[in-house]
Amino acid sequence: MTGQHRTPVTVVGLGSMGSALAEAFIDAGHPTTVWNRTPSKATPLVSNGAVHAHTMDEALAASPLIIACLTTYENTMEALEPAAARLKGRALVTLNSGSPAGARQLAEWALGHGARYLGGAIKNVPSAVGAENTLLYYGGDNSVFEEFASTLRVLGGDTVYLGADSDLAALYEMAVGGTLLPALVGFFQGAAAMQARGLTAASMVRFSVKWFEMINSVLPVFAEEIDSGDYSKPASSVNLFLAGAAHDEELGKEASLDMSWHKPFHDLLERAVEAGHGDHSISALTEILKNPGHTGQLHSVEGEVAATALA
Amino acid sequence: MTGQHRTPVTVVGLGSMGSALAEAFIDAGHPTTVWNRTPSKATPLVSNGAVHAHTMDEALAASPLIIACLTTYENTMEALEPAAARLKGRALVTLNSGSPAGARQLAEWALGHGARYLGGAIKNVPSAVGAENTLLYYGGDNSVFEEFASTLRVLGGDTVYLGADSDLAALYEMAVGGTLLPALVGFFQGAAAMQARGLTAASMVRFSVKWFEMINSVLPVFAEEIDSGDYSKPASSVNLFLAGAAHDEELGKEASLDMSWHKPFHDLLERAVEAGHGDHSISALTEILKNPGHTGQLHSVEGEVAATALA
Repeated sequence: MTGQHRTPVTVVGLGSMGSALAEAFIDAGHPTTVWNRTPSKATPLVSNGAVHAHTMDEALAASPLIIACLTTYENTMEALEPAAARLKGRALVTLNSGSPAGARQLAEWALGHGARYLGGAIKNVPSAVGAENTLLYYGGDNSVFEEFASTLRVLGGDTVYLGADSDLAALYEMAVGGTLLPALVGFFQGAAAMQARGLTAASMVRFSVKWFEMINSVLPVFAEEIDSGDYSKPASSVNLFLAGAAHDEELGKEASLDMSWHKPFHDLLERAVEAGHGDHSISALTEILKNPGHTGQLHSVEGEVAATALA
Repeated sequence: MTGQHRTPVTVVGLGSMGSALAEAFIDAGHPTTVWNRTPSKATPLVSNGAVHAHTMDEALAASPLIIACLTTYENTMEALEPAAARLKGRALVTLNSGSPAGARQLAEWALGHGARYLGGAIKNVPSAVGAENTLLYYGGDNSVFEEFASTLRVLGGDTVYLGADSDLAALYEMAVGGTLLPALVGFFQGAAAMQARGLTAASMVRFSVKWFEMINSVLPVFAEEIDSGDYSKPASSVNLFLAGAAHDEELGKEASLDMSWHKPFHDLLERAVEAGHGDHSISALTEILKNPGHTGQLHSVEGEVAATALA
């Protein structure tokens, strides 16, 4: 689509992310229809040129491309249900968070109503919507991705099609996004330690940024170890991390911090040592994470056997 | 120091990091003396031009600047002890990991023997030693930092003096470095989820890298919230993360992963909600981490009061 005749788009769900998506379509000159359960959220978008659909039927009727950005897949189905017949022949693209199972369930429901479905995820904050470097990925009906590629690219310059399975974006989103909360809690704990010493959280930001850049630089190596299953040439061993974990706990005590979230990590490291991975790369923890059924007891016995075998 | 007359340096401890440090000094033309408890580790460095000190006394006598890179502060003291008298008037720089308390103890010991002490940390992997962008920071005797600045800069272009307290590098190292293990476990779990689906860990690396870049982009905002104590304008709220945590657990079940490390994070989020932070920024978890003494019970009562006050 170029020039005056841009694809009409409907955005369902006007939380901070949904509103940012609608704003991007308006800015790019797409006729944009918006719907939200609480209608007042539409007001700023309408004053920028959006059409406010008061019913879901109006919302879906307005555009060949429907972008849903509600909190969950369940919310999405509930919101669309009253006008489900309108989905027939339309392209439905979801950009909410949720599990792969939820995405598959929604896809089945949407296809049952004759929609063409593409499950997407946006890997960034609302303020990054529309930027050249912003990543969105999609899985599902390739014809939807092909037909609306230039429209979808309005939301971010780094737009990727992952494959035909409708739950691929949800899978990648969760696999990739799972680092967020633990990484942030690590940062918040550091900030608390800074403050306990009368220093600011701001004073550590520059160093934390470099630290994450360092982490990024080693991810390809870890991925290779994990994919090959060869953990025998460690840049950083499980034993090294186990020594470091003890220091973390000392710092926590010194700064009077809640360290409750450390113990399971400490346990994972110890289970890895018991399983014979002490001198292996820290990425060998992946093997431990794959084995939820094992009890600590069982691991200890296996660990001894493994340690004996390696000795 | 320029030209032919570069400062002689002694490197104590030749693990992968210590060896990389010694290599960098050799490459930069510094007369380099090395010592290690297991002498064989010195062999590759000697063939590149290092002098192998067979005793600690020889090691310390050889240079005005001693760089110690052993596993812990305790190891460092034990290793230096037999030749402690040689420390008098020399500059001792440590580059091991450890707690601020450990750094202060070593500083006191070293000063007691007449050494000038600078406590440092290198925030990167051994292969990054010597690179323009590699960060090292130091706290302690400023005259050591000033006198040997160009020598220390051989180890990394981004060399920072934090202040006069000898434990500042240890404090920053732990505050900053605390994100590493949780972030990696998040990545390893994602890799395990990929493999459970027949996909590779390598296929998520490009996305994970962008995700950490996104995290980096929001750290200054979180730091500002934490330093001001104003969590009321959230880009991402505690409630949003709590909803996401439920999805994570679904994915873990679907991919048969060990999710034992999730529960404490879930608990932190719930305690934050109970304390009235549900609609506040996720950075409000910092306040929860500062309160290790509180029991869940107590939090519940406080939470109700806070929730009532906010209603």
